[in-house]
This record gives sequence, C-alpha cells and structure tokens, in this order.
Amino acid sequence: MPHIKLPEGLQGIRSAMALRPETAKPLNELTEALLHTPNSLPQGDRELIATYVSYLNDCYFCQTVHGSIAAACLNDDHELVKRVKVDFHGADISEKLKALLVIAAKVQKGGKQVSANDIEAAREQGATDMEIHDTVLIAAAFCMYNRYVDGLDTWQPRDEELYRQRGKKTAQEGYVSISRGYLPAKAPEVGAQS
Amino acid sequence: MPHIKLPEGLQGIRSAMALRPETAKPLNELTEALLHTPNSLPQGDRELIATYVSYLNDCYFCQTVHGSIAAACLNDDHELVKRVKVDFHGADISEKLKALLVIAAKVQKGGKQVSANDIEAAREQGATDMEIHDTVLIAAAFCMYNRYVDGLDTWQPRDEELYRQRGKKTAQEGYVSISRGYLPAKAPEVGAQS
Repeated sequence: MPHIKLPEGLQGIRSAMALRPETAKPLNELTEALLHTPNSLPQGDRELIATYVSYLNDCYFCQTVHGSIAAACLNDDHELVKRVKVDFHGADISEKLKALLVIAAKVQKGGKQVSANDIEAAREQGATDMEIHDTVLIAAAFCMYNRYVDGLDTWQPRDEELYRQRGKKTAQEGYVSISRGYLPAKAPEVGAQS
Repeated sequence: MPHIKLPEGLQGIRSAMALRPETAKPLNELTEALLHTPNSLPQGDRELIATYVSYLNDCYFCQTVHGSIAAACLNDDHELVKRVKVDFHGADISEKLKALLVIAAKVQKGGKQVSANDIEAAREQGATDMEIHDTVLIAAAFCMYNRYVDGLDTWQPRDEELYRQRGKKTAQEGYVSISRGYLPAKAPEVGAQS
C-alpha cells in the first residue's frame, strides 16, 4: 500500500502526478524534452539511458515503463533492452551509446563521479556537447523519478504486457499527450488535508 | 573547467540552463511549484529540505544557493541553516520539520529506504499527505539538480556574499522570474554541434 493516500487505479508515477498536477506538468514537460522531442540522439538510445539508470536504482516501475518504450523504438527487441541493463558493454549498441551509458552510470552514483576521461571517451565516439549534456540530465532526472516513485511506495503491478502496450503508445504520442489521459482537469487545493 | 562548453559568466545550474532552455523551463517551473508557490509548508522549511539534501549530496552550489534562500526566509539566520545541515535533530526547528528531514535523508539514499514508520512519525507531528508528498519530491528533485550541476562540473565560485545577495532576491521573486534574467530569449538549435 502506498505511504500516502493516492488516487486509485493509477500505477507508479501516474498516481503521484494525479495527486499533484502542479508538479506533474513540469515533470512531464521535462521528460518530453529529454526523451521524446526529436534531436540528434535517437529516441531509442535516450530511452535506453533512462531504463539503465532506473535499473541501477532498482526501480521496477521506471525500468519497465522505459524499457518498454525503448523496445517499441527498437523493433520490439526486448532482449536487447534486457542485455543493456545487465551488460551493456556486450550489447549490440553503438560505441557512442556505450560511452554515454558509462557517463550515465557515474551520474547515478553522484555528479562528481563523472571524469574528464569519461567525457573525452564519449567525444572520441562522436558525442556532441549537447548529447553529453542530455545524457547527464537524463541520468540525473531518473535519479529523481525513481526516488519519487519508490519513495511514496506507489502501486507497481507486475504485468509486463500492460507496460508493453503502453510503451508503444507513449513511444509514439509522448509524455505530455499521454498525461492528459490521467491528470485531473483541475488541480486539487494544495495543502488541503488528505 | 566544465566538462562541456557552457555559456560563460554564469554559475552552476544557470550555465547549463542557458545552454538548454527547453529543459530549463520545466526545471524552473518544478522548483517554483515545490519551493516558492505558497502552501501549508513554510517556504523556509522547504528551502531547508532542499539545502539539507544538497549538503548530503555534497553539492556546493545547490547547498549554498538554497541555504542562502532559506536564511533569507528565516530572518537571515545563517547559523540555523548551518546547524540544520550538520545536526538537524539539535536545531531550533519544528518537530514536524525534523520528521520530514528524516524522510528527505532516506530519499537521498534511495526511494525504498523510506519506511512506513518514517511516514507515521511525520504524521504524528502533524504532517499532511501533501506535505509528505512534497518532501519526497523535493528530496528526489535535488538528487537530480545536484547531479546535473556536478555531473557537468559547472563553475561554482566560492563567494558566499554573492549567494546571499541572490538568495534574498530569489526568495522574494521566485525561480521562474529570476530565470528570465539569464535564459536566452530564443533557444539554440538542439543537436547542433558544440
């Protein structure tokens, strides 16, 4: 049971977002900008970074949600997603993405863990400054989302098929659009007794 | 020197935000909703939670920025802010805030560290579900901001007076308003070579 009373029938972060739409809005816009809006780093790569960090933080909900979205971007290759989580060095992904995952893993431990050598190694594989920036912020953001989801002990059903179906939809439509389906039209009064 | 080329003359998170205004916008809106918009938890208490988590994450920039804002909300009591960082149990703050800081410290370690007993202890001191929600999200968000600031090795000058003057301004005006002073009016092209 969640630590606080959350809207029923919604899983993981959705239940917390429905409780507090004022913070849900920027949270969804941040994820949209980092993971969904087209840029030079493929959507599937960015979702893999999110999945890997969520795996390192042992967050079932986020690693399953974003692993499903990553797979939807990668020809439904769920095996590749699993491989990236447990051994990305041996996975069939680009050397550039491997170098970015090294940076993401350092950020997960703490910002000061990232070294000049890590950055140089990513540059040698063709990573731009903006791609390095986004990798650091994606990894940092999932250190937030993972703690938000697990810190409230949200409901996280173990039905992988549910996540896979949703993953296809979110991969296409994006986070802000999907959130309109579960956020209340009007925000409840902040500070009201629960 | 920062790990990537960042706009010069801007400190800490400001330099990263100026590079990427598309993510800066939701980041500032999130901080505004959590720390500045009035709600039942005093602004000073919320800034102390942000300061304490940033201290635990050893982020000089964030603990000094938010420590200065907290002091500005608390009659310029910088000694109280320092005391909260090193020994909040012995600080002259409410028992409710102490119980919320216990939760924040657990979130800093990882979401699963928060126990039902921690939540119950906060409720016994009068914390509402929304206050507990916000504490968890503030702590989680600073696990992101701290990693963002240090993961890019941003410039963080050691001039406390600078932070104190800014703290007073931010405490009054809020994050979104202040950000208009350093964010570019037009976003640079995402994915462009640095």
